[in-house]
Amino acid sequence: MRTQVGIIGAGPAGLTLAHWLKKHGISSVILENRSREYVESRVRAGLLEQNTVDIFKDLGLADRLLKEGQEHHGVYLNFDNHRIRVPFGNLTGGRNITIYGQQEIVKDMTDVWQSDGEKLFFEAEATEIIDIETSNPKINYTFEGESHTLSCDFVAACDGFHGLGRKTMPKDSYGEYQVTYPFSWLGILANVAPSSEELIYAYHERGFALHSLRSNTVSRLYIQVDNYAKVEDWPDERIWEELSLRLATENWKLNSGPIFEKSITPMRSYFIDKMQYGRLFLAGDAAHIVPPTGGKGLNLAVADVKHLVDGLVDYYKNDSIKTLDNYSSQALKRIWRAQDFSNFMTTLFHKQDEHGSFQYQLQKAKFDYITISEAYKTTIAENYVGLPFEAF
Amino acid sequence: MRTQVGIIGAGPAGLTLAHWLKKHGISSVILENRSREYVESRVRAGLLEQNTVDIFKDLGLADRLLKEGQEHHGVYLNFDNHRIRVPFGNLTGGRNITIYGQQEIVKDMTDVWQSDGEKLFFEAEATEIIDIETSNPKINYTFEGESHTLSCDFVAACDGFHGLGRKTMPKDSYGEYQVTYPFSWLGILANVAPSSEELIYAYHERGFALHSLRSNTVSRLYIQVDNYAKVEDWPDERIWEELSLRLATENWKLNSGPIFEKSITPMRSYFIDKMQYGRLFLAGDAAHIVPPTGGKGLNLAVADVKHLVDGLVDYYKNDSIKTLDNYSSQALKRIWRAQDFSNFMTTLFHKQDEHGSFQYQLQKAKFDYITISEAYKTTIAENYVGLPFEAF
Repeated sequence: MRTQVGIIGAGPAGLTLAHWLKKHGISSVILENRSREYVESRVRAGLLEQNTVDIFKDLGLADRLLKEGQEHHGVYLNFDNHRIRVPFGNLTGGRNITIYGQQEIVKDMTDVWQSDGEKLFFEAEATEIIDIETSNPKINYTFEGESHTLSCDFVAACDGFHGLGRKTMPKDSYGEYQVTYPFSWLGILANVAPSSEELIYAYHERGFALHSLRSNTVSRLYIQVDNYAKVEDWPDERIWEELSLRLATENWKLNSGPIFEKSITPMRSYFIDKMQYGRLFLAGDAAHIVPPTGGKGLNLAVADVKHLVDGLVDYYKNDSIKTLDNYSSQALKRIWRAQDFSNFMTTLFHKQDEHGSFQYQLQKAKFDYITISEAYKTTIAENYVGLPFEAF
Repeated sequence: MRTQVGIIGAGPAGLTLAHWLKKHGISSVILENRSREYVESRVRAGLLEQNTVDIFKDLGLADRLLKEGQEHHGVYLNFDNHRIRVPFGNLTGGRNITIYGQQEIVKDMTDVWQSDGEKLFFEAEATEIIDIETSNPKINYTFEGESHTLSCDFVAACDGFHGLGRKTMPKDSYGEYQVTYPFSWLGILANVAPSSEELIYAYHERGFALHSLRSNTVSRLYIQVDNYAKVEDWPDERIWEELSLRLATENWKLNSGPIFEKSITPMRSYFIDKMQYGRLFLAGDAAHIVPPTGGKGLNLAVADVKHLVDGLVDYYKNDSIKTLDNYSSQALKRIWRAQDFSNFMTTLFHKQDEHGSFQYQLQKAKFDYITISEAYKTTIAENYVGLPFEAF
């Protein structure tokens, strides 16, 4: 089989890339090693930046997103049980975020792709990416028990942190940067109406908490736990009790309800400083992980894709590799920004040192500064909704 | 001897307090353990915030400051030999900084105080502060070989980090917060015209450097050195060579000249969370130290004095202790802000980890963000010129 761009991974990065390339008349084939059911039920991020929503709109993929997604015009920040709000639109010239589960947008993109008769193979495992230093790289993969080869002009590895893409790049072709935080998130999904129409980030002396939501009937909540915490240590009552304490403010009550999902996520920052080797390009989690505090994971993946599309379009339309060669450095500007913002939000709202320490006082000073400074509030808002592409 | 407010220390805090109280008809006496010559030749900060300049103007103490001081309308920031400028006035509604040595303002205030016939005793060493839990505290001190007592309504300890004031407060009456940074500053004064009309803060892979100035003929420069560095390790040529490397940008040259002062300063953040005990009040370095990176030391001292004056005036005019009782909490808002900003500037521009590490990438990401974001630039500008008193 032959295509112009061979894509590994049918997550948000791979699917967005495929659709976007198609719009420009560039063909692609997607190989996904998991089943469709698995991919579409994988609970992940649900926070879409303005850029991301605009891209899905432009690609004609936003019908259900615009109907079912919830546009948020601000975010609540708690510190020691005191609550303030950072508005988005007012501070960013009308830019906002939309809450819409990653698996929903994946479902939408998969539906359109397949109903258009485009090629996407589920349970197709890429086993080798070869000839990436030539103009005809190939992906060897297995599908229905047989070995196949996808021959292409370029390979886009949108195959996640543990994917084949990064492993294929020579170890000495990139620098690697990482931080592992000394805490994790216990996340739950519960069948209960959200207690707040907008997200609430909270620093509390017992640790971080985040109130989020999936829909009008499903709440998504998180609490900071130790890295060695186990889901079994956290029966439902303990979770609700802890969330109530940490999120509390005057005249506000946390609704509780049946929890139907619990999981623990470690907090990590990771990125590499070169996302290309020859004709192999990485996008999304394959090249970087941010702690979920800034809600940047999915949005960074889509931004990578934007720059990769720019490069591929320039190549196919203008026979120029210049934009493609700048892919890494262009994408990295936003990745650094997102790493810094995610690190900022993480260190601002998590308990790191004893409550009341110098470190705590700096966190409190930052929170108080958000309260009084329009400029500082704006930095939170513009990072949160995502800086426009023109900014970099 | 008896007065209303007994002041220990004839530095900027003590002298500003004395003058300001006098304006309100409240009497004070200043005891200073050093000689006049020592105090007036002590090389310290030279960066006055807009608030500080406005206060000296209001007190009629700014004649020479306005003539000889240099108003700066922006600051240069370097990162990896790339330079940008943060303008002040445009971003802060016309607020700026003025460069005027601390010892000059001390000289000016001392002159006026003494020519008005007010009491200031040099080489008068406060040995004990007593009865601070009564309405008649006293300062025991020695002067010209004899013991004396200054009896007063209130004691203001403006006597610096090592002063008697803080030592007199019961250890369990306040919380103490501190950080010692793993680097120091080697500072020089040189007889050479400044190479830049505005300050330059520089991150460089060899470490931080700062280009500042004292006058049109005297430059003040600093470089980051190890905590165990000695002045002897730094002959003049090595200093100029290092400064040239670290401050370099295209089409810009560092002027060098004879160095007439060299000293090494450790970098420390320190503060206590209660600056009052009974009738004893601390102001300035007695209660807090910031790393010099933000230029906040002198300005914080003057801000403390503002709040202390507010309290004392309310007491003497309205017979109310309410404002005085709020002194600590009111002053601490700005102190926290200054601690956080000083910490921010310090961690942004110093080499902390290996060049190129994740930590470095975050520093670079912040610098790049300053470059592209008006809001982020504004946070630097508004902190640098000092937030207005109404802000807190």
